[in-house]
Amino acid sequence: SKYEYVKSFELADHLLPHTWIVVRIDGRSFHRFSKDHQFKRPNDEQALRLMNECAKAVMEDISDIVFAYGVSDEYSFVFRKTSSLYERRSSKLMSILASLFASTYVMKWSQFFPDKKLQYAPCFDGRAVCYPTEAILLDYLAWRQVDCHINNQYNTCLWMLVEAGKSSEDAQKILKGTQADYKNELLYTQFGINYSTLPEIFRKGSSLFRRKEEEIVKFKDGLPIKRIRSKVVVEHCDIISQQFWEEHAYIIS
Amino acid sequence: SKYEYVKSFELADHLLPHTWIVVRIDGRSFHRFSKDHQFKRPNDEQALRLMNECAKAVMEDISDIVFAYGVSDEYSFVFRKTSSLYERRSSKLMSILASLFASTYVMKWSQFFPDKKLQYAPCFDGRAVCYPTEAILLDYLAWRQVDCHINNQYNTCLWMLVEAGKSSEDAQKILKGTQADYKNELLYTQFGINYSTLPEIFRKGSSLFRRKEEEIVKFKDGLPIKRIRSKVVVEHCDIISQQFWEEHAYIIS
Amino acid sequence: SKYEYVKSFELADHLLPHTWIVVRIDGRSFHRFSKDHQFKRPNDEQALRLMNECAKAVMEDISDIVFAYGVSDEYSFVFRKTSSLYERRSSKLMSILASLFASTYVMKWSQFFPDKKLQYAPCFDGRAVCYPTEAILLDYLAWRQVDCHINNQYNTCLWMLVEAGKSSEDAQKILKGTQADYKNELLYTQFGINYSTLPEIFRKGSSLFRRKEEEIVKFKDGLPIKRIRSKVVVEHCDIISQQFWEEHAYIIS
Amino acid sequence: SKYEYVKSFELADHLLPHTWIVVRIDGRSFHRFSKDHQFKRPNDEQALRLMNECAKAVMEDISDIVFAYGVSDEYSFVFRKTSSLYERRSSKLMSILASLFASTYVMKWSQFFPDKKLQYAPCFDGRAVCYPTEAILLDYLAWRQVDCHINNQYNTCLWMLVEAGKSSEDAQKILKGTQADYKNELLYTQFGINYSTLPEIFRKGSSLFRRKEEEIVKFKDGLPIKRIRSKVVVEHCDIISQQFWEEHAYIIS
Ligand SMILES: Nc1nc2c(ncn2[C@H]2C[C@H](O)[C@@H](COP(=O)(O)OP(=O)(O)OP(=O)(O)O)O2)c(=O)[nH]1
Ligand SMILES: Nc1nc2c(ncn2[C@H]2C[C@H](O)[C@@H](COP(=O)(O)OP(=O)(O)OP(=O)(O)O)O2)c(=O)[nH]1
Ligand SMILES: Nc1nc2c(ncn2[C@H]2C[C@H](O)[C@@H](COP(=O)(O)OP(=O)(O)OP(=O)(O)O)O2)c(=O)[nH]1
Ligand SMILES: Nc1nc2c(ncn2[C@H]2C[C@H](O)[C@@H](COP(=O)(O)OP(=O)(O)OP(=O)(O)O)O2)c(=O)[nH]1
Ligand SMILES: O=P(O)(O)OP(=O)(O)OP(=O)(O)O
Ligand SMILES: O=P(O)(O)OP(=O)(O)OP(=O)(O)O
Ligand SMILES: O=P(O)(O)OP(=O)(O)OP(=O)(O)O
Ligand SMILES: O=P(O)(O)OP(=O)(O)OP(=O)(O)O
Ligand SMILES: [Mg+2]
Ligand SMILES: [Mg+2]
Ligand SMILES: [Mg+2]
Ligand SMILES: [Mg+2]
Ligand SMILES: [Mg+2]
Ligand SMILES: [Mg+2]
Ligand SMILES: [Mg+2]
Ligand SMILES: [Mg+2]
Ligand SMILES: [Mg+2]
Ligand SMILES: [Mg+2]
Ligand SMILES: [Mg+2]
Ligand SMILES: [Mg+2]
Repeated sequence: SKYEYVKSFELADHLLPHTWIVVRIDGRSFHRFSKDHQFKRPNDEQALRLMNECAKAVMEDISDIVFAYGVSDEYSFVFRKTSSLYERRSSKLMSILASLFASTYVMKWSQFFPDKKLQYAPCFDGRAVCYPTEAILLDYLAWRQVDCHINNQYNTCLWMLVEAGKSSEDAQKILKGTQADYKNELLYTQFGINYSTLPEIFRKGSSLFRRKEEEIVKFKDGLPIKRIRSKVVVEHCDIISQQFWEEHAYIIS
Repeated sequence: SKYEYVKSFELADHLLPHTWIVVRIDGRSFHRFSKDHQFKRPNDEQALRLMNECAKAVMEDISDIVFAYGVSDEYSFVFRKTSSLYERRSSKLMSILASLFASTYVMKWSQFFPDKKLQYAPCFDGRAVCYPTEAILLDYLAWRQVDCHINNQYNTCLWMLVEAGKSSEDAQKILKGTQADYKNELLYTQFGINYSTLPEIFRKGSSLFRRKEEEIVKFKDGLPIKRIRSKVVVEHCDIISQQFWEEHAYIIS
Repeated sequence: SKYEYVKSFELADHLLPHTWIVVRIDGRSFHRFSKDHQFKRPNDEQALRLMNECAKAVMEDISDIVFAYGVSDEYSFVFRKTSSLYERRSSKLMSILASLFASTYVMKWSQFFPDKKLQYAPCFDGRAVCYPTEAILLDYLAWRQVDCHINNQYNTCLWMLVEAGKSSEDAQKILKGTQADYKNELLYTQFGINYSTLPEIFRKGSSLFRRKEEEIVKFKDGLPIKRIRSKVVVEHCDIISQQFWEEHAYIIS
Repeated sequence: SKYEYVKSFELADHLLPHTWIVVRIDGRSFHRFSKDHQFKRPNDEQALRLMNECAKAVMEDISDIVFAYGVSDEYSFVFRKTSSLYERRSSKLMSILASLFASTYVMKWSQFFPDKKLQYAPCFDGRAVCYPTEAILLDYLAWRQVDCHINNQYNTCLWMLVEAGKSSEDAQKILKGTQADYKNELLYTQFGINYSTLPEIFRKGSSLFRRKEEEIVKFKDGLPIKRIRSKVVVEHCDIISQQFWEEHAYIIS
């Protein structure tokens, strides 16, 4: 039609080839969403497990994603370097991931919160970023995990103080400018909590990746017929240190 | 932390100021999705009404959207020219709309399909495009409505022929290269269908915009207290001709 | 060859269609360049005329440029809205203009400075910007001309004070935070200068555009054979007020 | 001023950090330019030496450029990976290089063509491309050198045939679809030319990089005072094979 010229206003947005594409999604206004749905403070394990389940669904749908890392209301998805999914069009990748994640969140809500009604539609923003080398990609993931650690330590202290009767403002004042050691100390001496024994899902966030597993497909003449299958697994490991990446070299390279 | 430098790899993606931003979302693989959910052919009115309901929710959430147009598995959202929502960051706008639309689709599914189970999470891609003038913006909307018309006329013929016993291939051959007149004629002579009497939602798609309405807030001393309120309405009007835009000049300007 | 894949790392950079493309070039380190070539202060008329000559050469080479405005060490070139030169590729447009301007500057230097040696190669940076409407485009040009006015008024005062014996620092202190009126007053009372009588090229900058002129091509039987030809002219007019654009409506539309 | 808002239409164009930025410039319409200035065919050594001299001037001006490679009417400039020159703004980098190269070309013309007048201003387009790894960067450079080789071999044959009396069309027909071996053979048997003995500047193009050299600054008490200085050198070496890069590892890393 004579109107088709308007399509030419769509500008190309291909991402640089041969770089690690990371799509990060983040819950829109989850401060309010967490309150409205009475998420436990500082961490709601069920809410986190729901996030993980959504990320798993995304990874199972989109095979070019090799790794995902989640913390709080956000998830980072790492595409393999040579992915040409949607011709590496930034809009396609980020919008599809944000969209699929959000709709899956609604689909799976009741499995994780059987007694809680979802009040309104959750929403996630998305962005796509390129990282040129493996080292920088790992720094990116370390950045998110360090963030997880810092926030979690702070929030754990904050809510212990509040539960102990402090006002939110007073608790914030007490913590302001303090170091990691001080916070660990505070948790231990005042609340008898050894920070390093708190659940790993809170302290480390969640890492998703594929693992090849041998699986019995069927039995033939009483003998098991096995097949190697790639399965998405969830772990709460340290992804800052090199060790994890050395032991799982196949993920990135 | 020493890892924060990785944030600098996020490149700015602000859209040109003072242009009409259109975010179009489109169902991912809805060919399959429509089949898997037994959508009526060529149009499933309930499916379309669900799409409209989602678009309405998006517009009610995001007040900078002044108009939306939907057809098939897609929806276009028009932001007011001077919107500075999310600083006009392309990623934010397109991902949030695609995400919110998809999660709302799941939330509202059972209202429209009380007897049908949603098989899996639906997903929508998104893109953001700038249109520099009102005239070109209206050409954009006309482009989508012309597309609606052409596809609907074709699909209506196709499925009438198929229902009449033709194979899908034969039906396609019959229609190949034919003009609008021929198709209208075919519908009328072979099936007694006057195309222009088919439901407008199929022929014209759906247009959403705000309309100021007087509404009774409460009664005081037996007298109604009224208030002007802006409400999102759904119509199936002709948006190609100037008339609509002249009669609703306030929408765009 | 097996190396050709590297071409795919070149990302598209087309500018939004149907917008006014402005390429602005600006002398690199012309603070130093002006000093090294003893440009008169605050304005060197020959230097400005050389700039104009270069801009004229650019416009004569590239017919899609409909207007150009120059001040100080910068020039803005306006492409017609529907230009598809180099497919509106941003890189091509800005680099070619910056390059052509700079090489022309060297070519024409000796015409304007017959007794001065060009010490080293001059260089101009370039950028391309889209303006969606005529009104905003005219605001852009007004922006540059207002800048011209403000800088010229300030610089004129500064150098009069310096010539009158003040140190550069003292002169700057005197002018700091003063209004236009004060500066005009100062020029008039202390130096007997009526600002509005200074050369227009200093106060208004230079505007280049095409004008249709009747020209005698040859004589036949003693009678002149005329032809209409479009010629680039240089004026130092007010381009902030509407009047100029009303009288020269053909330039922009 | 109230016009300053127009500055906000300039959109950011920073290049991805930590990648090798290559700015390639290429002569605009040098087919015509070479003819108009009677460049020798297939290669004009003086024209090439002038190109090299311009590239050298660019490298001496801009210290973040670590390598440059030139062939025909083009030059590629490689910035060190961590360069933050002009905040890695694409427009700045490409326009400044194209501009500086062109103006230098005019400045130095008469040194290389003392008896030839420069007819008009030369012009170069520019573009900036990011390469994420050293291996791909070297592939980029190999791509340009392979291009040099293929074009030079073809052009050498073409002009020998033409000089031997063939029409340009006939010569092209003879060469069409032929392999490298065939062309070498043709040069040898028909014209007694051993291709590999032709000047390296034609066969390999020109590579510019910095080399640390010990230099005598002055004499003190009859003894030389030396200093290590980095100097831009021009070579016509093989940059496709690893050897060069192994021997000059300091250039890239
Ligand atoms: N109570 C509770 N809150 C959580 C949990 N996980 C995340 N949140 C909340 C805490 C934060 O207020 C919020 C995440 O912070 P963000 O920086 O993403 O802010 P928010 O989502 O409100 O705004 P945004 O739209 O992302 O800019 O989500 C949880 O497990 N329990
Ligand atoms: N039966 C039925 N199908 C519909 C209806 N509305 C849309 N569809 C189907 C018809 C098309 O196959 C599909 C929309 O076409 P698209 O070009 O968007 O393709 P699709 O979504 O399959 O792929 P995509 O991921 O968008 O590239 O959705 C409906 O009301 N009834
Ligand atoms: N004496 C003199 N100087 C002039 C004249 N026109 C321009 N200039 C100088 C004054 C300013 O220092 C300089 C232009 O200012 P810019 O903001 O463009 O700075 P500059 O070119 O030094 O740095 P840049 O590379 O553009 O960031 O050129 C003139 O006619 N006479
Ligand atoms: N005779 C002669 N011609 C040369 C020499 N070096 C380059 N040229 C000519 C041959 C080609 O026609 C031209 C370079 O080819 P390009 O693909 O860059 O085309 P051209 O510059 O004409 O157009 P463009 O503006 O780059 O698209 O320059 C030389 O040493 N001698
Ligand atoms: O952590 P981010 O990237 O979401 O950082 P932010 O401070 O929320 O900024 P924005 O979402 O606006 O990019
Ligand atoms: O109608 P569109 O824009 O979705 O057109 P398409 O042919 O589906 O192309 P794409 O979604 O890949 O832009
Ligand atoms: O007037 P401009 O746009 O050159 O403004 P600037 O302050 O010189 O900034 P830059 O050249 O870095 O865009
Ligand atoms: O070799 P290039 O990149 O100049 O390739 P081209 O075919 O000349 O294309 P363009 O200059 O239009 O990018
Ligand atoms: Mg955020
Ligand atoms: Mg959030
Ligand atoms: Mg968050
Ligand atoms: Mg599509
Ligand atoms: Mg679709
Ligand atoms: Mg569709
Ligand atoms: Mg500047
Ligand atoms: Mg300057
Ligand atoms: Mg300037
Ligand atoms: Mg080219
Ligand atoms: Mg060329
Ligand atoms: Mg070339």
